[in-house]
Amino acid sequence: MPIQYEPPVRSMRFILDHVVDFDAEVAALPGCEDVSAEFGEELLSMAGRFCAQQLLPLNQSGDRQGATLADGKVTTADGFADAYHAFVEGGWGALSGEPDYEGQGLPRAFQIMLDEMVSSANMSFGLFPGLTRGASEALAEHGSEELKAKYLPKLTTGEWCGAMALTEAHAGTDLGLLRTKAVPVGDGSYKVTGTKIFISSGDQDFGNNIIHLVLARLPDAAPGVKGISLFLVPKLMTDDDGNVTGENGVSAAALEHKMGIHAQPTCVMNYDDATGWLIGEPGRGLNAMFTMMNAERLYVGIQGLGVAEIAVQNAVAYAHERLQGRGPDGTGPAPIINHADVRRMILMGRSFVEPARALAAWTAIRMDVAARHPDDATRAAANADVAILTPVVKAAFTDMGFETAVNAQQVFGGHGYIWEAGMEQFVRDARITQIYEGTNGVQAMDLVTRKVTMAGGAPLASYLGRIEADLGEGASELEASLLPAARAALASLRKASAAVQADTSIDAMGSAAVNYLRLFAIASMGWMWVRMAAASLEHGDEATKTRNLALANFYAAHILPQAGALEAAIAAGPDPVMALPADLF
Amino acid sequence: MPIQYEPPVRSMRFILDHVVDFDAEVAALPGCEDVSAEFGEELLSMAGRFCAQQLLPLNQSGDRQGATLADGKVTTADGFADAYHAFVEGGWGALSGEPDYEGQGLPRAFQIMLDEMVSSANMSFGLFPGLTRGASEALAEHGSEELKAKYLPKLTTGEWCGAMALTEAHAGTDLGLLRTKAVPVGDGSYKVTGTKIFISSGDQDFGNNIIHLVLARLPDAAPGVKGISLFLVPKLMTDDDGNVTGENGVSAAALEHKMGIHAQPTCVMNYDDATGWLIGEPGRGLNAMFTMMNAERLYVGIQGLGVAEIAVQNAVAYAHERLQGRGPDGTGPAPIINHADVRRMILMGRSFVEPARALAAWTAIRMDVAARHPDDATRAAANADVAILTPVVKAAFTDMGFETAVNAQQVFGGHGYIWEAGMEQFVRDARITQIYEGTNGVQAMDLVTRKVTMAGGAPLASYLGRIEADLGEGASELEASLLPAARAALASLRKASAAVQADTSIDAMGSAAVNYLRLFAIASMGWMWVRMAAASLEHGDEATKTRNLALANFYAAHILPQAGALEAAIAAGPDPVMALPADLF
Repeated sequence: MPIQYEPPVRSMRFILDHVVDFDAEVAALPGCEDVSAEFGEELLSMAGRFCAQQLLPLNQSGDRQGATLADGKVTTADGFADAYHAFVEGGWGALSGEPDYEGQGLPRAFQIMLDEMVSSANMSFGLFPGLTRGASEALAEHGSEELKAKYLPKLTTGEWCGAMALTEAHAGTDLGLLRTKAVPVGDGSYKVTGTKIFISSGDQDFGNNIIHLVLARLPDAAPGVKGISLFLVPKLMTDDDGNVTGENGVSAAALEHKMGIHAQPTCVMNYDDATGWLIGEPGRGLNAMFTMMNAERLYVGIQGLGVAEIAVQNAVAYAHERLQGRGPDGTGPAPIINHADVRRMILMGRSFVEPARALAAWTAIRMDVAARHPDDATRAAANADVAILTPVVKAAFTDMGFETAVNAQQVFGGHGYIWEAGMEQFVRDARITQIYEGTNGVQAMDLVTRKVTMAGGAPLASYLGRIEADLGEGASELEASLLPAARAALASLRKASAAVQADTSIDAMGSAAVNYLRLFAIASMGWMWVRMAAASLEHGDEATKTRNLALANFYAAHILPQAGALEAAIAAGPDPVMALPADLF
Repeated sequence: MPIQYEPPVRSMRFILDHVVDFDAEVAALPGCEDVSAEFGEELLSMAGRFCAQQLLPLNQSGDRQGATLADGKVTTADGFADAYHAFVEGGWGALSGEPDYEGQGLPRAFQIMLDEMVSSANMSFGLFPGLTRGASEALAEHGSEELKAKYLPKLTTGEWCGAMALTEAHAGTDLGLLRTKAVPVGDGSYKVTGTKIFISSGDQDFGNNIIHLVLARLPDAAPGVKGISLFLVPKLMTDDDGNVTGENGVSAAALEHKMGIHAQPTCVMNYDDATGWLIGEPGRGLNAMFTMMNAERLYVGIQGLGVAEIAVQNAVAYAHERLQGRGPDGTGPAPIINHADVRRMILMGRSFVEPARALAAWTAIRMDVAARHPDDATRAAANADVAILTPVVKAAFTDMGFETAVNAQQVFGGHGYIWEAGMEQFVRDARITQIYEGTNGVQAMDLVTRKVTMAGGAPLASYLGRIEADLGEGASELEASLLPAARAALASLRKASAAVQADTSIDAMGSAAVNYLRLFAIASMGWMWVRMAAASLEHGDEATKTRNLALANFYAAHILPQAGALEAAIAAGPDPVMALPADLF
């Protein structure tokens, strides 16, 4: 049975219409007057066809063939270059890009739904446009007018690609340790020299330019993170019209041998007296890079969601086809979808995917509000929501996405362990999403050390208040199980929030961080289930109503009770984690 | 940093001496008069050296090279044949084998500790002796004297290897569907014809015979599982002295392309008019095979433990070496073992591995009691304990082993995703343990549908009573956190047990199964932590005391509270799992 994929456009439309109230929230914003959920559905249907027809067929073959390196040049797997050109020609790279620079200026909610489908169909491929968009957003926000004029239009459309070069072998999470140097030439440019590792899309054979955003130190730079600046370093030198005038000192020194995403060339990159230009202020490189990193963190969270969606779809298909044991009428062999534990494994994934998609759409709308709303305070409040949810989406969606891929593989039994079935690739591919763009532990630390306490905790209080407002008395179908469970989870989250706000020692926050983020996500998705279930009762057809209420009830019975266990672990404080002397581990 | 491994012999000795009371329990049994924990430590130290020095160096190279197939013959990765011969010559294959058939007759507790170290060092390798032992045990219990005389001595020593051939492409969990045929020749032998898949150790190039235990149907067999018989089918035909007289109709048709255990030849096997002999009664094949499967299920559980142990060891080593961020004194870069979340990830694994090893040892001792005790009732009670714990050890140890491998990989950040670090192999290898020998869902169904209700629930009540007896008032260090948490988990397990005993409909049991097994394991390992912590207070040196109390307190704070969430999911009954119509998944 080949891997199949049905773009979940119906679910997306339902979420836009009835869960996040897209038309009221977004179409009212300046620049969004012409968009609607209906238009979104048309657009996403086209995008979904592209993903299913052009990207999915390259996913397994790309995994087996991988990217290769010879003479400092990367060759991508068969079909990837053509698919990338088709993607750009279809306009998919420019969807949410700046209209001033060739972008289509469409809302973020459409963008992340496109991102989800690309990630379902081909995670390795998706990193090419994903990093390109992140680079263009960082350049748009922090670059000089001159740099933007020269590089931004082709980055925005995807004609040129982007890459981000942060990590060095000894400097991962702790970027303050990095050693790459940038020396001013005197004409406004710099010579950049150093070696970076784990550079996704660092090189490829698409025949275009690659714009590397490279963190490096100026000669007189302060030690640590305050001495880091950001540089734009193109693979190819070009004139003002974008014509190639020569090569730059940029080469792929090696490809990493990875557990997954084999078709994605993850490079060791050498910058050898490479010409570059400063983006933003000297010493403010991390600040500029964080624009790109925040964009990428959301993107990576969506990758987790995307892999989960396609893994669940194929588990469902297999469970309908595979005959083992007896069905409800006692005869057999019957499809294994009849077996309770097979259902349970699938429901673990399904009950995550749907509210995750809704929460992602809600976050994306907050991004549009933050970017476009005329009122300062409204923009600031939206910005704060996005700041809080960025680490949650990144870490929780990728942890649960990985778990979903593992459960979906388990539905296949022994066949799931074999390459040909395609399920084990989802597990290997999904695994990187928990690691890159800041490990999920780093995301959790971001949440507890910065987001929970920012502005005296007011944005967190506002977010929790918004959830609470939706958990008031509901229909009897929701009061039976979902609403009480969602309220209990919110109460756990409130107690845990008070605990991490009360003891801000690094050990207390570090001990609580991952459990707190998980609790935050479980409660937030419980909130989304309440919205989705209520919307289904009000607006859904019979099938939607039956489906969403059943999924919500599963979530209420099997997932929301975990909130109490997480609250208990957080309440235990730092001692259980810190007491053991390091030499006795 | 190459993968390292320190055999955990000290932990094993402590468990034997102080947690499971080995000398009192086992040395008192007939045939065990000469063994002691002290002897065990010497033996296991030797075994550990063999694993670390001979098997570990082949683990990564074996993964990269894999096993290959040409002309129906398998070639194993470099070094595997020599390592296997050294293993057999060292006597490690015969450790717990029947003394009447060249075995050493040593206790099971030593055997499973050897199994753990082999699994840590090289899971792919370990399946060769692991399956050989399972085959020899099934033959010993169900084979005729004639078959035993001819095949058992060489199987027991490991001079010849064993394999078990159950699965067919359309018949996995549901073995009643299998089609392989066995036709009597008239001289007491049969001609066996059919194709089996997923046959671990199905072929190799060790230059010895391979004894396949094959499930097949006689011509007049009933449909379903009652028509299945078990046959001994050797790769090579031999005379009564074991000299090879010719080939048999047994060939490897293909090797599976797997996510992991690449060095283990997982074969599609063709039996083509292959000569075989009936083991046990016609139509009782599953019964005979279950002897082997129960042995293998425990073995697979121990594989999960073994992979977890080596993964944690290497995460600890990396966390001491890797410098990122600041240490407790505010200076940096400091080893990441100082960071709370890195500690938490390691503690998740460490706090599982230690009580799992103790619970495995306890189970192994019950096996020796079941096999050797002079009193019928004592043997029966021990047998019931083993029956209950077999699915728990198989499923919980492999689920938690996989989760431990994932957490340990996460400690490495991006480096953990790269082949060279060796951590991603542990994740890929560990993944199969959740699937083979009956998926973990099947184990959970075995627990709730058979083990929990057997003999009217008396064995379960006895097991829970034994836990309860150890959770009485303890030292103040244990009353602070561990004992109350362990009692709460036991209370949850009692309530959940009553629930699964009360509604024995297939949907109710199936909906509860996996959560119930997890709860069972969490409470059982909490019990073991109580025994280990109490023993550490009484017998441990300062380091042991500090270490085990800290690990136990982590388990009490972060793991035991999960019992409540699992109890809640079980209490919700089958409806949340069964309500969704199959076509709406």
